[in-house]
Amino acid sequence: MFGFEYYAPTRVIFGRETEGQTGELLKACGAGKVLLHYGGGSAVRSGLLGRIKESLGKAGIQYAELGGVVPNPHLSKVREGIALGLREGVDFVLAVGGGSVIDSAKAIAYGLGEPDKDVWELFTGKRTAQKALPVASVLTIAAAGSETSNSCVITNEETGEKRAYDDDISRPRFAVMNPELTMSLPDYQTQAGCTDIMMHTMERYFTQGGNMELTDEIAEGLLRTVIKYAQILHEDPENYEARAEIMWAGSLAHNGLTGCGNDGGDFVSHMLEHEIGGMFDVTHGAGLAAVWPSWARYVYRNCLGRFVRYAVKVMGVEPGADGEETALKGIEAMEDFYRRIGMPVNMTELGIAPTEEQILQMAKSCAAAVGGCKGSAKLLCEQDFAAIYRMAR
Amino acid sequence: MFGFEYYAPTRVIFGRETEGQTGELLKACGAGKVLLHYGGGSAVRSGLLGRIKESLGKAGIQYAELGGVVPNPHLSKVREGIALGLREGVDFVLAVGGGSVIDSAKAIAYGLGEPDKDVWELFTGKRTAQKALPVASVLTIAAAGSETSNSCVITNEETGEKRAYDDDISRPRFAVMNPELTMSLPDYQTQAGCTDIMMHTMERYFTQGGNMELTDEIAEGLLRTVIKYAQILHEDPENYEARAEIMWAGSLAHNGLTGCGNDGGDFVSHMLEHEIGGMFDVTHGAGLAAVWPSWARYVYRNCLGRFVRYAVKVMGVEPGADGEETALKGIEAMEDFYRRIGMPVNMTELGIAPTEEQILQMAKSCAAAVGGCKGSAKLLCEQDFAAIYRMAR
Repeated sequence: MFGFEYYAPTRVIFGRETEGQTGELLKACGAGKVLLHYGGGSAVRSGLLGRIKESLGKAGIQYAELGGVVPNPHLSKVREGIALGLREGVDFVLAVGGGSVIDSAKAIAYGLGEPDKDVWELFTGKRTAQKALPVASVLTIAAAGSETSNSCVITNEETGEKRAYDDDISRPRFAVMNPELTMSLPDYQTQAGCTDIMMHTMERYFTQGGNMELTDEIAEGLLRTVIKYAQILHEDPENYEARAEIMWAGSLAHNGLTGCGNDGGDFVSHMLEHEIGGMFDVTHGAGLAAVWPSWARYVYRNCLGRFVRYAVKVMGVEPGADGEETALKGIEAMEDFYRRIGMPVNMTELGIAPTEEQILQMAKSCAAAVGGCKGSAKLLCEQDFAAIYRMAR
Repeated sequence: MFGFEYYAPTRVIFGRETEGQTGELLKACGAGKVLLHYGGGSAVRSGLLGRIKESLGKAGIQYAELGGVVPNPHLSKVREGIALGLREGVDFVLAVGGGSVIDSAKAIAYGLGEPDKDVWELFTGKRTAQKALPVASVLTIAAAGSETSNSCVITNEETGEKRAYDDDISRPRFAVMNPELTMSLPDYQTQAGCTDIMMHTMERYFTQGGNMELTDEIAEGLLRTVIKYAQILHEDPENYEARAEIMWAGSLAHNGLTGCGNDGGDFVSHMLEHEIGGMFDVTHGAGLAAVWPSWARYVYRNCLGRFVRYAVKVMGVEPGADGEETALKGIEAMEDFYRRIGMPVNMTELGIAPTEEQILQMAKSCAAAVGGCKGSAKLLCEQDFAAIYRMAR
C-alpha cells in the first residue's frame, strides 16, 4: 500500500431538474459574468441551454457564450474562448456538455488565469499552472469524469497531438448532474461512455505493489455496477435509475477514489488511445475498448494476481487452479461484455485500419507523450506500444 | 432513488510520517496563527505534538494551544477555546486527536466565526452558522469520521445534553492521516472505533425508498473491509495495513459517500446512544454496539429487504427461503462479530444498568433531541425508544 493524497472538492448536485439551480450555485461561488461553453446544437435544440440562461438571469448572472466544441476538443477553440473571455471580462467558466466541453472549459480557465502565457505549454509539460478561473459544469454525458476530476485533454489539431494536463487547480467548483439530460444520447455514445468510466477505474486497478482492500472493494463494486447498468441502457435507454447509476459511477471512477493507496495507476491504455484519437478522431471510449483486450493480453502475466482477482470478482469467472487460464477467461468475458453493448474489441471493429507506418508513428508519438516508457501492470516502451497496436488491428 | 448533494472537499494526506507536512499545509491554506487543540497527555507523551510544533515552526506558523479535550467533548472546553482564540487572535483551528478533539475544534471555530453569538444555540437548533474559522486535523483515532464530515457533537455537561450540529461550513480543509499514529490505541478504543465506522454506513444503509446500487456496493465493500481488519487488529494491533484500511474506512463511512441516493439515513441508533453517552459517559462506539442489536430486532420487519441483503452480502449468511430468518441470522452474525472484537451487545455488557426511570428519561430526552419521532428503517417515537432501551438492558 502506498501513501496518497485525495482531494475531490467538487460540490455535486444530483437529481432530476437540478439544472434549474445553476444560477444560484454560480452566485454562491461569487460569479459575476460567466463564459457559457457548450458543444453542438443539441444543448440548444433540447432547450437545456435556454433553461440554464433563464436560471442565470434569475440569479443576476451575466454571460458570454461560445458553442461549437467538438469531441477530442481543439486547441483552436480553446484559444477562441480565451480571447472571448478576456474581451468580455468573464470571471467564471461554465461548461454545458460532456467531457469534451468540460475539458475545453478547463483549458480556457487556465488561459484566462494566466493570459500572458501560452496555454498549450501546460500540455507539452513546459510549465505548470499557477492560476486558473473557477470552472463548473452542467453534465450531459456520463463518461469522462471531468466534472469532478483534475484532468483535461486537448487536441492540437495542427499537429495531431492529443495531450493531457492534470492539475487540482482545475477541479470544478460544482457539477450539476441530472441523469435525464443523458437520456437522448445515442446508444453508441452511451456505451462508449460506460467503457471510458470502467477504464478510468481499471487503469487504477491493474497495478503493482498492493492496493488497499477498501479501494479494491469500491473499484470492483463500481465496475459490477457499470457492467449491469450499461446492459440495461443498451435495451432501455430512458431508464432513469440506470442513467443515474452510470452518471454517478462516471464521477467516482475518475475523481481519485478508486486509486487510493495504489502506485498512481497504469494509464497505458489511455495513452495508446490518445494516439488513435489524435490520428483518427474516433470516440474515446470506443477507442479504449478497441485497444484494451490487446493491452491486457500483452501484460497480464506480469500482473497476474490482479487479472485473476478481476476475472473472479468483477467478471464472475469461476476461479480455476490455473491463474493464467482464469485471467484469460476474465479478458474474454470483458470482450464478450464489450460485444454485448456494441463496443469494438479491436481497431477493425472500431472502423479504422492503420498502416504499419501509421502504427510506428502512433507508437513513437505515444512514447514521446509519456516521456519514453510508462505502465504499472507492465512497464512498456515504444516497441511495446507498436506491438499492442499490431495485436489490436 | 433520491436526488442528493455530495460535498466532501477535505484534502486528505494519507500515509506514514505525513504529520511532518502539517505546517506547509497550514501555510498553503493561508493560516497565520492557529489554535492547536488536543486531548489528554498521549499526544504530548508520544512526541506527536512536539513534531507538529516543529513543523509549524519551520513553516513560520504561530500558535496558541489548548489541551484537555475529553471523550464526549464538553461545552465548557469549547467556550474556553473560543475565549483563548479571541484573546490570541488565531485565524485557524488545528485539531490533533480523534473525533472528540476535532468536534471540539469545529465548535470553537463556529464560536470564533461569530463571537457575538452563543455557540450552543447551533446545537439546540436556534440558529444556523453563517461563518466559522477554517479547521483541519492530524488524526490519531479512526472512528468518528469527523476529519472529513460536516458533523460536530458536543455535550453540555451542565444539562447532560449531547447534541449534534451538521454544517458544510465546518468541513475540514485538510486531514493528515498517518495510520501509525493509531497503533498505540488500546484495543477497546480501536474496536469501538471500528463499530462507530460501520455504524455510520449502516445508518445510511438501513433505509426505505431504494438506494443506489453503486452506493450499496460501496457500503457493503466498506463494511466487509472493516469486519475483516477489525479482527486482524484485535490480534495484531500494530498491523500497518489493517490500521490504514480502518482509518480510510472511517473517513469514507461518514463523508456522505455511503448515503448518496438514499433518503438521508436512519440515525436512530446514534440518537439512542447519544442519550446513553450523555447520561453515563460511555465510549461512543461501544454504546452503539450495545444498542444496535435491539434496535435491529425492533425494526427489521419494516425494512426486511435491506436486512436480508445485509445478512447475505455483508455478513455472509446463506440466503434462505424465509426472509425473516435470514435477516435475524444477519443480526446474530453481527452480534457474534461484536463479541469477537470485544464489544458489548447490550447495556449490561457495556457496564451500565439504567433504571426504568433513567430509561424513561433517556427516551424523553431522545424524543426532544429528534423533535418527536425519527427513523427511516422504521419511524420511532418516545415509547419506541424506551422499548429499545429495555430490550438492550
